[in-house]
Amino acid sequence: MKKNAFYAQSGGVTSVINATAAAVIQEAKKFPNQINKVYAGQNGILGALRENLIDTSKNAKEYKRLIEVFKAHDIGYFFYNGGNDSADTAYKVSQISKSLGYNLTCIAIPKTVDNDLAVTDTCPGFGSVAKYVAISTQEASLDVQSMMESSTKVFILEVMGRHAGWIAGSSALAKQDNSDAPHIILLPEITFNQTAFLKKVKETVNKLGYCVVVASEGIKNNKNKFLAEANTKDAFGHAQLGGVAPFLANLISQRLKLKNHWAVADYLQRSARHISSKVDLEHAEAVGRYAIKYAVKGMNGVMPVIKRKKTSRYSWEIVPAKLSKIANVEKKLPKSFITKDGFGITKKGIDYFSPLIQGEGPVDYKNGLPKLEKPKLILAKKKLPNWK
Amino acid sequence: MKKNAFYAQSGGVTSVINATAAAVIQEAKKFPNQINKVYAGQNGILGALRENLIDTSKNAKEYKRLIEVFKAHDIGYFFYNGGNDSADTAYKVSQISKSLGYNLTCIAIPKTVDNDLAVTDTCPGFGSVAKYVAISTQEASLDVQSMMESSTKVFILEVMGRHAGWIAGSSALAKQDNSDAPHIILLPEITFNQTAFLKKVKETVNKLGYCVVVASEGIKNNKNKFLAEANTKDAFGHAQLGGVAPFLANLISQRLKLKNHWAVADYLQRSARHISSKVDLEHAEAVGRYAIKYAVKGMNGVMPVIKRKKTSRYSWEIVPAKLSKIANVEKKLPKSFITKDGFGITKKGIDYFSPLIQGEGPVDYKNGLPKLEKPKLILAKKKLPNWK
Repeated sequence: MKKNAFYAQSGGVTSVINATAAAVIQEAKKFPNQINKVYAGQNGILGALRENLIDTSKNAKEYKRLIEVFKAHDIGYFFYNGGNDSADTAYKVSQISKSLGYNLTCIAIPKTVDNDLAVTDTCPGFGSVAKYVAISTQEASLDVQSMMESSTKVFILEVMGRHAGWIAGSSALAKQDNSDAPHIILLPEITFNQTAFLKKVKETVNKLGYCVVVASEGIKNNKNKFLAEANTKDAFGHAQLGGVAPFLANLISQRLKLKNHWAVADYLQRSARHISSKVDLEHAEAVGRYAIKYAVKGMNGVMPVIKRKKTSRYSWEIVPAKLSKIANVEKKLPKSFITKDGFGITKKGIDYFSPLIQGEGPVDYKNGLPKLEKPKLILAKKKLPNWK
Repeated sequence: MKKNAFYAQSGGVTSVINATAAAVIQEAKKFPNQINKVYAGQNGILGALRENLIDTSKNAKEYKRLIEVFKAHDIGYFFYNGGNDSADTAYKVSQISKSLGYNLTCIAIPKTVDNDLAVTDTCPGFGSVAKYVAISTQEASLDVQSMMESSTKVFILEVMGRHAGWIAGSSALAKQDNSDAPHIILLPEITFNQTAFLKKVKETVNKLGYCVVVASEGIKNNKNKFLAEANTKDAFGHAQLGGVAPFLANLISQRLKLKNHWAVADYLQRSARHISSKVDLEHAEAVGRYAIKYAVKGMNGVMPVIKRKKTSRYSWEIVPAKLSKIANVEKKLPKSFITKDGFGITKKGIDYFSPLIQGEGPVDYKNGLPKLEKPKLILAKKKLPNWK
């Protein structure tokens, strides 16, 4: 029976997320006997709740409303494109629709720059951040190195990763020789040890003349407190404004008296479509395509995940995985990827990261800037009373 | 008479500076009867002082040493690639060498991301930073805009520019429609007015749902103090760690209670060779080439500068300018480039900036990263006792 589909994006932006959206829409057209219209939610699942065909506090009332909206618009397929939380929402919607006797096929599509989804080898969006961070680390390090004699000795780049060090870890790809930057990577998986950190900075500057640090926003002290949120006074009686990079810079200025600079990449890293990874774009497209394939086969409560094949040259395939195994599980950087001193990435880690940044996604430029399409979004006509 | 040449880079890095170095070296080969070897200074002019064929406190002793080193290595041409200070150094070296009876042709070659050199229409290095900043502003703004309903409302990007707002101003290129980001640009040319700023942020969020701010690191309050160096307590009794972006973010959190994010591009912006402007690369190459042409013609104490032609389509030429007119002069953003409210860039400003970011410089990639050449640098044999 022909049904409409609803597609929503959840959580933060990635530079390749619309490759997934485009794949969902295009692949759906190949199954005209099963899928009628593809609706997309304005502002993620809020769009469905408000019937502007839920990143909300998912309660029974909201799930019920969601099913009502789906019913009103004859939606038989629900595609939710996000991370752990979204996998959980899609899983719950699949269970609740069943209990309400409403026939709905729920597919979660992976997307998160944090790369912390279980089961899948990697998450669309991550490879491009890794590429951005590795390139930025390389470029800024050449800058520092060329000026170290008379200027900055220590450079700190703060990157995303509240709970897992995948993004910070990927900066190790900038390292071609042992003496190359980054010299210190600070991961949320490793408790921040101020003494060991300052010792390593000093040693590196003494040996190489400069030191580049890449720090995860999520590093914590031995009281399990985010350094960036050490909102009271620091060791020197200064209050903190937030930001790991300025915190570390202050530490280095005060304790080591070394001239330093710091950068915080923030949204720049995850939205940098101009330097997206081609492999990442291919992943993003494939998961969208397979989501449709699985849906029309009637596979409910699954996610198309990326499986790395055991070939010497990188190859991969898309396979289905049960949402029950993915929902709310957080995948940290494995111990085997982290060097013994806690400040670096092992060969095994590099072998994991490297294939994910290969190739450059095509970008059309107009007037010196990436060309923007500003499609006019047409809202479907509402059929239910307003929500809230 | 055949003489050696000495080439040194001064001050900060640009993503296109080595296009100038390559042009100097290649163009010099075309004049084998006049120019013998081209020596490059390791660590800028420090290399000459230490005879590791000077950004130092330029005193008579140092200038004398410089001439001694030049004499020992039969150097008849001095090329100094930098900004205001370097133009001044090259100018002084040309005068001192004359007074010491040493025949030396001194040419300053423009290079500064700050774009604050007098006479020249623009400075090699600037167009690429402008391109980086405009693209980053566009990308991060799309990120914020897509999430504004349920997440961040205000995004702040801090860019370089200690005394002039050229870099911050160039972010206006991201604006295609009136409602596009950046909505507020904070320039060092305009005294920071906290009340007007907060009012404009609030109005923008109310109207568009989000607000993007691009702030020059060099903005000052009405006491002529850098906001980033307001080292004492802020209005809320918090001490500052430095950084305009976290300062503004804190202000917005406290006064407007709006969720915000901030990024500090720091060295990433000036070293981003992966997104260099093609026009900028062409400028950087041309000034290097003309430096040699002028030198072999015996033009002393000049700089090859970029002159914008009065054509409807952007065109330019290289002309010589006297160092006496450039040394230590700082070119600010003209008033006619700044909108009446002080928060934006006029059409005249856009017309100036736009040609400078056109085209993308070619980049070779290897393994997902820009391909690095690591040439082995061979030091010339020393002929004088060590310096210092």
